[in-house]
Amino acid sequence: MPTCDPIGTAHTSLSTTDDAPRQGFLEDVEGAIDIEPAYADGLSGLAPGDDVLVVWFADRADRSVLTLDRDGRGVFASRSPARPNPICLTTCEVVAIEGTTLEVLGVDMLDGSPVLDLKRPIDPERRTGS
Amino acid sequence: MPTCDPIGTAHTSLSTTDDAPRQGFLEDVEGAIDIEPAYADGLSGLAPGDDVLVVWFADRADRSVLTLDRDGRGVFASRSPARPNPICLTTCEVVAIEGTTLEVLGVDMLDGSPVLDLKRPIDPERRTGS
Repeated sequence: MPTCDPIGTAHTSLSTTDDAPRQGFLEDVEGAIDIEPAYADGLSGLAPGDDVLVVWFADRADRSVLTLDRDGRGVFASRSPARPNPICLTTCEVVAIEGTTLEVLGVDMLDGSPVLDLKRPIDPERRTGS
Repeated sequence: MPTCDPIGTAHTSLSTTDDAPRQGFLEDVEGAIDIEPAYADGLSGLAPGDDVLVVWFADRADRSVLTLDRDGRGVFASRSPARPNPICLTTCEVVAIEGTTLEVLGVDMLDGSPVLDLKRPIDPERRTGS
């Protein structure tokens, strides 16, 4: 049973799921990712203009959902945050970095969502790779 | 502190990190994803030929690493499995589905890795979206 301590917190203007963009575009919404100072070294090499894949935990999602009401599709064939382990992935553009705070564009997570990881985005030409 | 019970297990021919392809291509390696029967309904709508994003936990990764030896880059600017929360993402192609077992192509996870989630892949044209 893996346990993950958040590495940081997302700050956004979205306070309810109704506010959240549905599969929005990168430009849509500004926010900030606050990384815990203990993990500062992990940010080395990230710069404004980079894309970063934010791995976050939808702590207010319904974890009991297995099929979507709207079309009966299974959650594993969807990107709905409602799912047994609501680990969510959002590609954001880094606008500025001050200390361990990243200002980003393209957020869709609710304010206060725990951030579990940041990664270089998936290269669609190569696809695989942890 | 989010807790995640695995939804399944990855079965691959990779038993050590030295075996694992580095950012390999989709075609490279066959494997299977066994989903716990309790989550069977979540697979509805997945079919052979589909791509699926496998969210897995690198349970043998070094979680103390913040910068990579090879170039000093921070782990949050990389896709190395070594990182504080080794949640890894691999795009696989579904070859066959038998019950709650998915035969897939494109694995790069070690045999026995816990699977935390399956998702529809990120659309590179749209980028964002949980």
